[in-house]
Amino acid sequence: MYRFNALLSSADRTETTAPVPPTAPENVGPLNAERLACLHRYWSAANYLCVGQIYLKANALLREPLRAEHIKPRLLGHWGTSVGQNFIYVHVNRLISERGVETVFISGPGHGGPAMNACAWLEGTYSEVHPSITRDEVGMLRLFRSFSTPGGIPSHCGPHTPNSLHEGGELGYSLMHAFGAAFDNPDLLVACVIGDGEAETCPLEGSWKSVHFLDPRRDGAVLPILHLNGYKISGPTVEARLSHEDLIDLYRGRGYQPVVVAGDDLPGMHQRFAAALDACHDTIRQIQRDARERGVPVRARWPLIILRSPKGWTGPKVVDGLPVEGTFRAHQVPLATVVSNPEHLQQLEAWMRSYAPQSLFDERGTLRQELQALTPPAALRMGAVASVNGGRRLVALDLPDIADYGLEVPQPGEVIAEAPRKLGEYLRDVMRNNPYNFRVFGPDETNSNRLNAVFDASDRTAAGPCLEVDDHLAADGRVMEVLSEHLCEGWLEGYLLTGRHGMWSTYEAFAQTVDSMVTQHAKWLQQCREFAWRRPLASLNILLTSHAWRNDHNGFSHQSTGFVDNVLQRRSDVIRVYYPPDSNCLVNVFDHCLRSRNCINVITCGKQPDFQWLSPHQAREHCSRGASIWPFASNDQNQLPDVVLACAGDVPTTEAVAASWLLQKHVPGIRVRLVNVVDLGVLSAPEIRPHGFDTASFEALFTAQAPVMFAFHGSTWVIHSMVHGRANEARFHVRGFSDRGTTTTPFDMVVLNTMSRYQLAIDALSHIPRLREDAAQAVIFFEAQLRRHHVWIREHFEDLPEIRNWQWTSDFSESQQPPPLAIGHVKRQPFTDA
Amino acid sequence: MYRFNALLSSADRTETTAPVPPTAPENVGPLNAERLACLHRYWSAANYLCVGQIYLKANALLREPLRAEHIKPRLLGHWGTSVGQNFIYVHVNRLISERGVETVFISGPGHGGPAMNACAWLEGTYSEVHPSITRDEVGMLRLFRSFSTPGGIPSHCGPHTPNSLHEGGELGYSLMHAFGAAFDNPDLLVACVIGDGEAETCPLEGSWKSVHFLDPRRDGAVLPILHLNGYKISGPTVEARLSHEDLIDLYRGRGYQPVVVAGDDLPGMHQRFAAALDACHDTIRQIQRDARERGVPVRARWPLIILRSPKGWTGPKVVDGLPVEGTFRAHQVPLATVVSNPEHLQQLEAWMRSYAPQSLFDERGTLRQELQALTPPAALRMGAVASVNGGRRLVALDLPDIADYGLEVPQPGEVIAEAPRKLGEYLRDVMRNNPYNFRVFGPDETNSNRLNAVFDASDRTAAGPCLEVDDHLAADGRVMEVLSEHLCEGWLEGYLLTGRHGMWSTYEAFAQTVDSMVTQHAKWLQQCREFAWRRPLASLNILLTSHAWRNDHNGFSHQSTGFVDNVLQRRSDVIRVYYPPDSNCLVNVFDHCLRSRNCINVITCGKQPDFQWLSPHQAREHCSRGASIWPFASNDQNQLPDVVLACAGDVPTTEAVAASWLLQKHVPGIRVRLVNVVDLGVLSAPEIRPHGFDTASFEALFTAQAPVMFAFHGSTWVIHSMVHGRANEARFHVRGFSDRGTTTTPFDMVVLNTMSRYQLAIDALSHIPRLREDAAQAVIFFEAQLRRHHVWIREHFEDLPEIRNWQWTSDFSESQQPPPLAIGHVKRQPFTDA
Repeated sequence: MYRFNALLSSADRTETTAPVPPTAPENVGPLNAERLACLHRYWSAANYLCVGQIYLKANALLREPLRAEHIKPRLLGHWGTSVGQNFIYVHVNRLISERGVETVFISGPGHGGPAMNACAWLEGTYSEVHPSITRDEVGMLRLFRSFSTPGGIPSHCGPHTPNSLHEGGELGYSLMHAFGAAFDNPDLLVACVIGDGEAETCPLEGSWKSVHFLDPRRDGAVLPILHLNGYKISGPTVEARLSHEDLIDLYRGRGYQPVVVAGDDLPGMHQRFAAALDACHDTIRQIQRDARERGVPVRARWPLIILRSPKGWTGPKVVDGLPVEGTFRAHQVPLATVVSNPEHLQQLEAWMRSYAPQSLFDERGTLRQELQALTPPAALRMGAVASVNGGRRLVALDLPDIADYGLEVPQPGEVIAEAPRKLGEYLRDVMRNNPYNFRVFGPDETNSNRLNAVFDASDRTAAGPCLEVDDHLAADGRVMEVLSEHLCEGWLEGYLLTGRHGMWSTYEAFAQTVDSMVTQHAKWLQQCREFAWRRPLASLNILLTSHAWRNDHNGFSHQSTGFVDNVLQRRSDVIRVYYPPDSNCLVNVFDHCLRSRNCINVITCGKQPDFQWLSPHQAREHCSRGASIWPFASNDQNQLPDVVLACAGDVPTTEAVAASWLLQKHVPGIRVRLVNVVDLGVLSAPEIRPHGFDTASFEALFTAQAPVMFAFHGSTWVIHSMVHGRANEARFHVRGFSDRGTTTTPFDMVVLNTMSRYQLAIDALSHIPRLREDAAQAVIFFEAQLRRHHVWIREHFEDLPEIRNWQWTSDFSESQQPPPLAIGHVKRQPFTDA
Repeated sequence: MYRFNALLSSADRTETTAPVPPTAPENVGPLNAERLACLHRYWSAANYLCVGQIYLKANALLREPLRAEHIKPRLLGHWGTSVGQNFIYVHVNRLISERGVETVFISGPGHGGPAMNACAWLEGTYSEVHPSITRDEVGMLRLFRSFSTPGGIPSHCGPHTPNSLHEGGELGYSLMHAFGAAFDNPDLLVACVIGDGEAETCPLEGSWKSVHFLDPRRDGAVLPILHLNGYKISGPTVEARLSHEDLIDLYRGRGYQPVVVAGDDLPGMHQRFAAALDACHDTIRQIQRDARERGVPVRARWPLIILRSPKGWTGPKVVDGLPVEGTFRAHQVPLATVVSNPEHLQQLEAWMRSYAPQSLFDERGTLRQELQALTPPAALRMGAVASVNGGRRLVALDLPDIADYGLEVPQPGEVIAEAPRKLGEYLRDVMRNNPYNFRVFGPDETNSNRLNAVFDASDRTAAGPCLEVDDHLAADGRVMEVLSEHLCEGWLEGYLLTGRHGMWSTYEAFAQTVDSMVTQHAKWLQQCREFAWRRPLASLNILLTSHAWRNDHNGFSHQSTGFVDNVLQRRSDVIRVYYPPDSNCLVNVFDHCLRSRNCINVITCGKQPDFQWLSPHQAREHCSRGASIWPFASNDQNQLPDVVLACAGDVPTTEAVAASWLLQKHVPGIRVRLVNVVDLGVLSAPEIRPHGFDTASFEALFTAQAPVMFAFHGSTWVIHSMVHGRANEARFHVRGFSDRGTTTTPFDMVVLNTMSRYQLAIDALSHIPRLREDAAQAVIFFEAQLRRHHVWIREHFEDLPEIRNWQWTSDFSESQQPPPLAIGHVKRQPFTDA
């Protein structure tokens, strides 16, 4: 028979950094006989409930012999990891009970749902939020029947599990969630179980360095428990096959103090794991006490537990002559053909009865009183602490008045500015007003994104020692910069899920590295809406400043608008997408986003100097509508226009306004209307997106029949699918981002992507039959300009002067000289056309 | 003034694992005086070229005093990393020259383009592929002018750089590309530079473990060179601030043998780095010799170099009174206002002249003859080796005849099978026939995906010691399983980019974790098509077997079809998307994909037992067309049908065929046509996708006016946007995947996602006015069935018997009993309706 100990290296068996050596007699350790028995039986109860969830649709307490008709038709769930997670959960319960420490449990290994459900049911929190799943035999059976069945619960933990703030579906994010939860949560302990499968994912591997960003003075503690049970689905895991020495080196190098607990001996494993937990907790408290008493930055070496225990421990040892416990065969359902194979059925019954259910549950099916003693005090149960349901501790931000961050814009387009500058000042004051529950995250681009005013409120978080030459770096800095979109997103998720607020910013193209993470967070939020007891969370705010249209120089790799494509596939009440066209709109949108709840807000706005269109007052009105007509750039006098020039995004807005200018200047008699869209969702019908425009509002902007040239920041299909079903939808001609015709080289994006002012004007004219003859000359001129521009930029490395120096003016006579620009330090050259 | 050595810990300064201690006199080391001088001047030449690329649009060789009009209007490029990369590149050149080792250079740090361009130009390979960039002053200026300007080249390396197989745009993938390149490339050395910024990304952190998957007997070597220059854009990097001890522990724990070279002293750094390179190469050859001679698996500890050198080394030390060299200020353009600030202009000139360009380049502007001696022999230049342009060494796969992997299907729907089983047999034989240039990658799901026949050809790659209990695990296994989609994708990319073939498979939902990687690879392929000298590569094949429609039990987190949404945004000649409806189509599609070049093929096909529709012969014809009418499920006799039932995807196909069955059975006189789409791209017009159907072909299937109920595997917008522009596009009613109305719980996906056979039938009837009255009874029945189904599955945890036991039959009379099923071991119950 397969022996688990064969897996352990000699070093694992003979050495240990844990307080109790593996060769110690069974009664050596922190647990007295009574505690030990209680703990073991509590664990057995949890294990029993896991097996029940996987197999049973009837006969929950085995009151009668097990028969095929008691077995579910489809067997799902992962036994392999569940038993280890129960082990850890029950031990952490003991720690909480004895030391009164507020603790959150994060279950990283995949499909460990049965364990989290079982432990929540045993401690009572499951029944408190799901009253029909009572703490008796009826409730137990309902729990079993709901597991992985239609209308029931998934096979991993999720929002339905009251003791989880983390969804165990897509692997890799447990440790970053743990650290996000610990930041600014000084009294919290986050016990984070990481499976050795999950430990192979890149996001998890990249999460270990989070420990360097933890400040023991003001942050809580994360206790990672790396659970090496040896196998993934069918192959061994990398870390489980490392030598003892490499494993210790690795985790020391990662900044931790590893404590190894290894074996399959009972009750020895209980004693050793309990001793390890106690020691780790002592170390954590010592680190925190030292740092808090001395008040100076400390580079602490935080503890970490490496638990090596058999996969599917306490389950069937051999099935059909093959070893199962401790092998990959224990990964999912160890006995797979129970319904049709009487031998398997018998083995299942023996396995379940090995836990002696009648000794664990009383006649009603409730956990026996003496075992409930191990459950922590009600408020400290891991399914009851406030941090696991962060909305319960959410405090609204103290937000400054956005009127103080207005940029004066005397006339549209008269001012050139970098839109995020004022936002930086606004965020600086948000940080000042909310020093304990708001953070800014990003991959080292806060400065580059023109948000540097925030450094007046707080420094960057130092992940190591500071040098004199460093810029705004301190151990207690609250601007968290790490060159990892995964960590920015994951830390912020953990921070929000425990009831705080924040944002992160990055390059538009590279935000796609976390497409899947954002999808999973959106799914979490969608599900939360179905549980009233899951209180609303602050929204997740993502600012994309270095966007596709401004990455001509960085080249093709930096140009992608797909992040929004992906989020828009999620449910509309969770997703908001904003394209503020200038500084005043950007501040407005952000203020709105920081007040919103349970959303993912994606805000795209460039950081380069660009035209400012709206005054603070106009911006407020425009943003509150989501989209509106811009009268200064329209000349249709509220009559039916020849063409509607619509735009969403800063570059498209400039090009659309300039196209309006060109059309009015070169095509006398044309009636143009310009519509700007800030909040993309308004384009959809209200039955599709809750804040979509009704028909009257939509047609008040876009009319019911005029051709619409829509200059859009992203993919054309986004607009096409949003206006699907609107009157005469074929009149929407969308010009958006496309890399389909591109070259390898940097280029003038606007020209090649058919969204230049000239191209928009040409295309608009092609849809206005009544002006075709008047417009012929203009079209010839516009086309010539496009060709000139192509040649010019290759020679001079900058735009044509008439593009570079263009500015909006309402006087279209040839002799008109625009007034000099008022702000932006750059005195613009007067415009000369041709 | 800021001293770089302040950055080094005492340990770095006093200890080193490199062969030459940092305190040794300058003449101690492997370089004699002549070699040392040559190497230093070659490095200076490369540095000079980098500065030129960043700043100059004229006066390339400083033949006249530098003036503002010689300076580009917009200064771009990253000086900070370039100089260190030049240092490494030049030293690797020396190694190659002396030892004749075939080497590929991977430049990981961001925006190191100037260095790669410079080194390729110096060695001559740049001019060989870009003949206009000659090896003289004219060519030098053209290189400068093309850098980061319109119509030019990006600021990072890319396909235009002949010495790179890696694009330096999105950070994180250098090391996985390096290992992908080394697998099955026994004589290759991959010198992979990793910046300390890139080292913070999760994909990079997860890549280190690749070393455990390397077999020294048959794979080449990767020499990672971790370049710690201390800073990202404005903050310090995590690893640069680790203590010496932690850093050594970390890399030992990761399985390497680290050699540290630190300092800013010259020529000492040259001697020490040269000695380190020599020592590492010795170690590598020793490992390979031992392993190859003894022929047994060896767990080698491979060398790694940690280079600590100042950021922007040899650049301006102080600018405007602030330290620059060795600080974050050297990251990008150290002197930013050269045009307007005469002092900066003067400083730039002094900096450039400090390299003494006239001593490096001859009168023509060519690198001086004595320096060219350091360039490796022509065929071994890193821009000339075959692996850097993998198409040059691509050998077509020896593919078996797919006729041997046909599944007998006597009548449509008569056989139930798991589609990937036969594919597994096919892939087994592909592996057997191509034992050195084909690999299968996946996150430990080869078995679960029913591809386990491949294990008859090769084992899993063991990433550590093997145990008796392990299943198909061996050090020389070629099935690479690692629980990381990033590594699967990245290794395969590296493998393909060096001229080999392969595929990887995963869960559909979790493929989205690599959205961005796949986007970047697509962009690489798109760009390659513009360079004839970049020879065609084997396509990247991705199989998605555990798809959204079959993850009801795993829950919401496992349900997402967005991977295809994302790839479809890329240029159409690079992207192919297939939805084979059964086993015979799947093998057909795969065979086609393995023969294709320069594509990304995404194939979605479930692994669960399902109906088989087409015989091998029918499948071949169907797949070669891309889409066709299925006569068995149609009764329109080639007349105008009342409705076209279209489908793409295996679950949609079953539901659409069943809807056809229901309609024919319950609505006498109805004329139905069923169209199945395998190759999604055929729906687009040929001007949008090259293999799209022309109008005649399209309308031969979909008619020009009949309503089309389209059951689609993914998002509805995909079909809507593809049929945009076809005749009467509003008649396409798409039912696709949506999570917008979902609950938290597992559920019968088909019912909730409005794609059930009943819902399709109801919706189809709503579009056929002539049958509205005849159909009323049928609609009532279908709606009742939907309600019954909803209740039934919650009680019985499986589908209604009439769904579970349904099978296709062409006799629609009430009394008809379908024939028993022929294959699949499961004797199906006869169908009973109501």
